Amino acid sequence: MNQAIIKYVLGKVLAIVGVLMVVPTVCGIIYREDETFAFIIVGVLSFLIGHFASRKKPKNTMFYLKEGCVVTALSWILISVVGAIPFMLTGEIPNFIDAMFETSSGFTTTGASILKDVEALSHASLIWRSFTHWIGGMGVLVFLLAVIPMSGGSNINLMRAESPGPSVGKLVPKIRSSASILYRIYLGMTIVQVVLLIIAKMPVFDALCITFGSAGTGGFGVRNDSCGSYTPLQQWITGVFCILFGVNFNFYYYILAKDPKKSLKMEEVRAYFCIIATAVVFIFFNIQDRFNTVESALRASFFQVGSIMTTTGYSTVDFNLWPTFSKAILVMLMFIGACAGSTGGGFKVSRLVIAFKTCLKEANSYIHPKSVKKIKMDGECVEHDVIRSVNVFTITYLAIFIVSVLLVSIEGKDLVTTFTSVAATYNNIGPGLAAVGPAANFDCLSYLSKIVLIFDMIAGRLELFPLLILFHPAVIRDIFVKKKCSQSEK
Amino acid sequence: MNQAIIKYVLGKVLAIVGVLMVVPTVCGIIYREDETFAFIIVGVLSFLIGHFASRKKPKNTMFYLKEGCVVTALSWILISVVGAIPFMLTGEIPNFIDAMFETSSGFTTTGASILKDVEALSHASLIWRSFTHWIGGMGVLVFLLAVIPMSGGSNINLMRAESPGPSVGKLVPKIRSSASILYRIYLGMTIVQVVLLIIAKMPVFDALCITFGSAGTGGFGVRNDSCGSYTPLQQWITGVFCILFGVNFNFYYYILAKDPKKSLKMEEVRAYFCIIATAVVFIFFNIQDRFNTVESALRASFFQVGSIMTTTGYSTVDFNLWPTFSKAILVMLMFIGACAGSTGGGFKVSRLVIAFKTCLKEANSYIHPKSVKKIKMDGECVEHDVIRSVNVFTITYLAIFIVSVLLVSIEGKDLVTTFTSVAATYNNIGPGLAAVGPAANFDCLSYLSKIVLIFDMIAGRLELFPLLILFHPAVIRDIFVKKKCSQSEK
Repeated sequence: MNQAIIKYVLGKVLAIVGVLMVVPTVCGIIYREDETFAFIIVGVLSFLIGHFASRKKPKNTMFYLKEGCVVTALSWILISVVGAIPFMLTGEIPNFIDAMFETSSGFTTTGASILKDVEALSHASLIWRSFTHWIGGMGVLVFLLAVIPMSGGSNINLMRAESPGPSVGKLVPKIRSSASILYRIYLGMTIVQVVLLIIAKMPVFDALCITFGSAGTGGFGVRNDSCGSYTPLQQWITGVFCILFGVNFNFYYYILAKDPKKSLKMEEVRAYFCIIATAVVFIFFNIQDRFNTVESALRASFFQVGSIMTTTGYSTVDFNLWPTFSKAILVMLMFIGACAGSTGGGFKVSRLVIAFKTCLKEANSYIHPKSVKKIKMDGECVEHDVIRSVNVFTITYLAIFIVSVLLVSIEGKDLVTTFTSVAATYNNIGPGLAAVGPAANFDCLSYLSKIVLIFDMIAGRLELFPLLILFHPAVIRDIFVKKKCSQSEK
Repeated sequence: MNQAIIKYVLGKVLAIVGVLMVVPTVCGIIYREDETFAFIIVGVLSFLIGHFASRKKPKNTMFYLKEGCVVTALSWILISVVGAIPFMLTGEIPNFIDAMFETSSGFTTTGASILKDVEALSHASLIWRSFTHWIGGMGVLVFLLAVIPMSGGSNINLMRAESPGPSVGKLVPKIRSSASILYRIYLGMTIVQVVLLIIAKMPVFDALCITFGSAGTGGFGVRNDSCGSYTPLQQWITGVFCILFGVNFNFYYYILAKDPKKSLKMEEVRAYFCIIATAVVFIFFNIQDRFNTVESALRASFFQVGSIMTTTGYSTVDFNLWPTFSKAILVMLMFIGACAGSTGGGFKVSRLVIAFKTCLKEANSYIHPKSVKKIKMDGECVEHDVIRSVNVFTITYLAIFIVSVLLVSIEGKDLVTTFTSVAATYNNIGPGLAAVGPAANFDCLSYLSKIVLIFDMIAGRLELFPLLILFHPAVIRDIFVKKKCSQSEK
């Protein structure tokens, strides 16, 4: 394994996190808060250590899929730990596991919180919580690729490990340009949402935090009732943007590149909007008698569907009180998730489409045993490797889910809490049902459960394998033992 | 489609069901019950109609996979309907949907009941309920193959459609001999269990019914508390036989064929016993403080694990009251199910083993991208087609599960009831948790839910595709419209 490049990238990541802490620092200075010191200390130290560690660019900057996965998994663990330290220093979340839960929930854009009273937090900490969503949404390594020149065509392995979805589409031949185009679209949409929310009379601080949360499809809010106390217009804007950030970003790229035909041909995006529309209609008719006006019922179903399907996790009402049919639809949407290549989590719509087509093909093969049909997506044949990886992903996904449920069940919470706490963190959504529902939080769980859920959040965000292979004996040996070998090789 | 052969086979199946009604008739005559008349009428009529419909053997007795699937699915629907009529005639279950629920639950070896008071039923009806388990366990078409000579090598398509598991192993070159060997092993083990239970002082009638239920891994009992009021020895015998009937029958065949080495090499069987042992140990330590003696705690965990894992569904205690950890393990076992090639349902252990190996292979491919490794099972390479079909099966399995949960959730029962009622019927187990738990029954559900669950039971028993392709437009056209074409072809 190329350990030099791993150390180099990790150093860069640490330095970037240090730089990004400028945001809470500035916010803390504006509001003249004592908690600012924590962000200054951690920010400066991270930057210096990171900068020092990545001073020398290694000669061999090639890295393969294995290194890509390892460096991605380690980066995400690193930022979750470093991002948690300010919360501990300010005393707002004194326990390390709790602070790490909150931060990994932020970076992985889960939005599950252990805080009982969000409004008691300082502005600096609040904006840092929300800002972690924005960083984690598009990915910290994609950011790295966008801003730092890295040589060699092997960077695709970094992007492949961090980007959501079954296949990474290079938008343009150069990875660096792809990464930078993605970030420019991301930034542009973020600005539009902030401006619209401010026009709709939301306080600037709230507008920033809520936008970071919807852009990253995270879900941390700044009020205890999530989005319940905002005006209907503000809720509509937030709901619409949640859904827009759940669209495959290639869709926007094609529009910008003046190729709207290609946009409209994207089956995943069409399926995504169809699922949203169907779910909204069903839930609307199921819950409308609980609301006074048609608009409020429609808004509640639209907002909740958009928020859950894109795995954002904001809520305007306590959907834990909804009828079972609506809750079952929401649980199903939790698993489907957003589009590949978006900031959302979950199983991804494109995997669902491919899986569905595979089943249809199997059914056909019973009727026409000799026909050889290829599965097509967006008019092109889906490669056999992609189909196989979708199948394998499904099974691994289930296996981790089952083991997590078993581990969380040890503490003896009821089945719905156990089941949905895993579902909500694993799919990077946020709130579950019952004791971890939208009106409650994850503080009631034991530390063992919290550690399992931290693992699930990161595994869900990195789509399993990059994190899993960290536990592969060969990789562990490579990281720790092989150092001596490579030294003796000299 | 070869419609003549489908009509021929369906006729034979109907005639066989008529003959099998001799069992409840004899029982009813012994106990001098008025309800016997229903079984005499339905039995005689079924035999006559069936015999008449299959009088002429069609010239072309070849059938392909498509015909195999269609005829299997139609046979199972036919026997569920015909088997339900006696319950309606005796007035014991007056409603058709309820009676059909009970009968398909019997034939598919689910064991889910809508009856509040089982002990109020006549002996004839009780033994018919249990006997449907025994018939359904090994399969009615396998029975047909064993007793009626059918020409051509294409019978494998019938057996493939009805037998559980990812691949049908022909034990001996001739299908008819395979089917008859399976039935002889099945009959032999049944007799041993009945004799043992009678030696353990169980009443003969109970011994027969309980044995039919465990042999078919069904779960219908004759007492309201399932197996709770039997003696410890009787419970141990029943528990052990449940587990033995969940073993792949090839295991016994190899032992009988004096090739025990091949038996011991079967990875599926080893995995099956490992899972059972692990689950028993975990549940034992989780629940032991609720019992007075170690033996009773061990017996309770052993019996419940054996009964749920093999999808039998008998219970000696109300495990709905157990801690969440134990309940989560039981829910997980519900999904795994028994071995392929046994009478049990569920996802099947062999699929689990193949799926697990596929994931391991994928993880390895991240580390050694160029290595080409074949997945092996019992020392032999697993063919690519089998792996693909396991993957596709998983996804289809999930899809049907999700749609069923959504449909059942419409009536608004709580999430645990909704979720486990589908899980328990789809995997052919029997009791779920909460409102459909071991101490309750399925009568509380709406007719829509019952119809969905009937579909799930049959889909689960036939392993999805044979039933699903009945709904394929091409097949529907073939069944109804093509008749004219084939006539005009003459």
